[in-house]
Amino acid sequence: MARPDGTIQLGHGGGGRLSQQLMQELVVPVLGPEDAVLHDAVRLVSPGSQLAFTTDSYVVQPLFFPGGDIGRLAVLGSVNDLWMAGARPLALSLGLILEEGLELAVLERVLQSIAQACRQCGVSVMTGDTKVVERGKGDGIFINTSAIGVVEHDLQIHPSSIRPGDVLLVSGDLGRHGTAILAARKSLGLRTALESDLASLQPPVEALLAAGIRVHCLRDLTRGGLASAVDELARSSAHCCLLEETAIPLHPTVAGVCDLLGLDPLGMANEGRMLVVCPPSDAERALQVLQEFQTDAAVIGTVGEPLAVASALQRRYPASIRNALGVLRPLDLGSGEQLPRIC
Amino acid sequence: MARPDGTIQLGHGGGGRLSQQLMQELVVPVLGPEDAVLHDAVRLVSPGSQLAFTTDSYVVQPLFFPGGDIGRLAVLGSVNDLWMAGARPLALSLGLILEEGLELAVLERVLQSIAQACRQCGVSVMTGDTKVVERGKGDGIFINTSAIGVVEHDLQIHPSSIRPGDVLLVSGDLGRHGTAILAARKSLGLRTALESDLASLQPPVEALLAAGIRVHCLRDLTRGGLASAVDELARSSAHCCLLEETAIPLHPTVAGVCDLLGLDPLGMANEGRMLVVCPPSDAERALQVLQEFQTDAAVIGTVGEPLAVASALQRRYPASIRNALGVLRPLDLGSGEQLPRIC
Repeated sequence: MARPDGTIQLGHGGGGRLSQQLMQELVVPVLGPEDAVLHDAVRLVSPGSQLAFTTDSYVVQPLFFPGGDIGRLAVLGSVNDLWMAGARPLALSLGLILEEGLELAVLERVLQSIAQACRQCGVSVMTGDTKVVERGKGDGIFINTSAIGVVEHDLQIHPSSIRPGDVLLVSGDLGRHGTAILAARKSLGLRTALESDLASLQPPVEALLAAGIRVHCLRDLTRGGLASAVDELARSSAHCCLLEETAIPLHPTVAGVCDLLGLDPLGMANEGRMLVVCPPSDAERALQVLQEFQTDAAVIGTVGEPLAVASALQRRYPASIRNALGVLRPLDLGSGEQLPRIC
Repeated sequence: MARPDGTIQLGHGGGGRLSQQLMQELVVPVLGPEDAVLHDAVRLVSPGSQLAFTTDSYVVQPLFFPGGDIGRLAVLGSVNDLWMAGARPLALSLGLILEEGLELAVLERVLQSIAQACRQCGVSVMTGDTKVVERGKGDGIFINTSAIGVVEHDLQIHPSSIRPGDVLLVSGDLGRHGTAILAARKSLGLRTALESDLASLQPPVEALLAAGIRVHCLRDLTRGGLASAVDELARSSAHCCLLEETAIPLHPTVAGVCDLLGLDPLGMANEGRMLVVCPPSDAERALQVLQEFQTDAAVIGTVGEPLAVASALQRRYPASIRNALGVLRPLDLGSGEQLPRIC
């Protein structure tokens, strides 16, 4: 790449000869045909008119962690967001912001991981962009992926479909991603065998749809964990939500690390777990479907009355949680500072 | 925003209460309805099956420059990329990477600018994401925008449509954006009255299509300027391209600054200029259409023979330029280091 020390330099983002070389020698060989990467906009044909669209930037540290890396996270994260609308991925975009001095070998490893995750999800990087910032103005690699999906079912999978009496399920045990990242930060001196739960949510979502479950809403439990997701769903659906603390599945290591460090496991990030909201009549079948993929999938709560008829306290804290002693308390959302740069 | 000094803190990117507040108090009031910003993926209906998709990250420094700012650039830049496929914008995504300590007032100004540019382009931010990195791991604001467009014409606007004898036109004078950014960098002590050419390319593209011009290819002349664009088009279309140096319109300030600093004006970035490739029989009408928007739009070159039958030198340097004395030389692409972080 025209530099003996094998690192990214500012010119790689300048749109000239070095940019061209980076594309032709590193990006295109890994990610696919030149045609898909070099033009202003790519043309594609949609098989349906019902689309879904999502975007996420990824700034996770470290770039490589037990169970994944920033490249795999960037693909699965955005594709999972599409599946939360029940949408099949059609096209992915890739925006890289590289820091001057980044080793090309690191970039190549991330690109390989992106390519592998794309193959797994049946999607391709159709358009991309690379920028370079000076040393000390970035942090290795930041990635943005945006994704277009096509919706091929008649359900309205959306907070507005949530109804009183609906059942809340999680697709597996919680908090692995956050805990794995925490342990991977060397400064903490924490050693666990735990891996991130990073995974595609396509199989369980497709199975729910195929089983005819009347899915009202889906939400992946990433940044902010279960607590943020349930709080947001309660607010955006304008319904109270009640969680049963004893029903929430946690890996023993997650529970132990959170205990040790005084962190809330319900605020820990996941990258392969989702919340499923469905009518009570479908809940048992939904649980069976989810348990085919993760044996500790569980029913963890219910949707209560509309906020319009709820108490003032409930309107302020629409989500609450009941502990083993039967004590009900507002669900604590957390300020968001417990673990920065988790994704 | 829960912090007395009015700056971004790490928790604003943590997915908890602070993230929620940032969305509800700053982002949603400026960019639009909550529904469009808070969900994993947004659903939208496409009026046609022929889509275009593009992505770009923006790391320009300074954030505010004569004639624009990073917010306006991020909207127009990606929407212009869609128009380069002749596609009308349908939806925009917005990914923000903020540096801890960024003033909220700066963020709000950028968001206002994004909202205004969206209104001008007839598009909305339909999905978004905000991340925060520690002080010294970013640089104020980085923005990614991705855009979906719909193609409502039957032309194949693409390098593969380029034919021998085609005419190359530019839609106006070149190099203003790069020069304005250069002058805005205080360390250079350069003072000019020049503004960036940052503008929507929708009006001239729509006018070309409405006039029935058989447009073979369009390319906006951003990073890398005219030199990169012509070199890339020559390579991807596998045809020689010849530019006439005396025909290329340059603003006197651009020419002067480039002379002074030893920069190549043909490598200077633009953000509101494009290259148009059309058959010779349509070139005069195309020029008339373009001149209705910019009086100094010009015919600047032609497409030569296919590379397959060209000389070895031409296959290596498929684009060349003829100067006032009639001397032909290979078009120098530049390494890309002449001006980092131009967009």
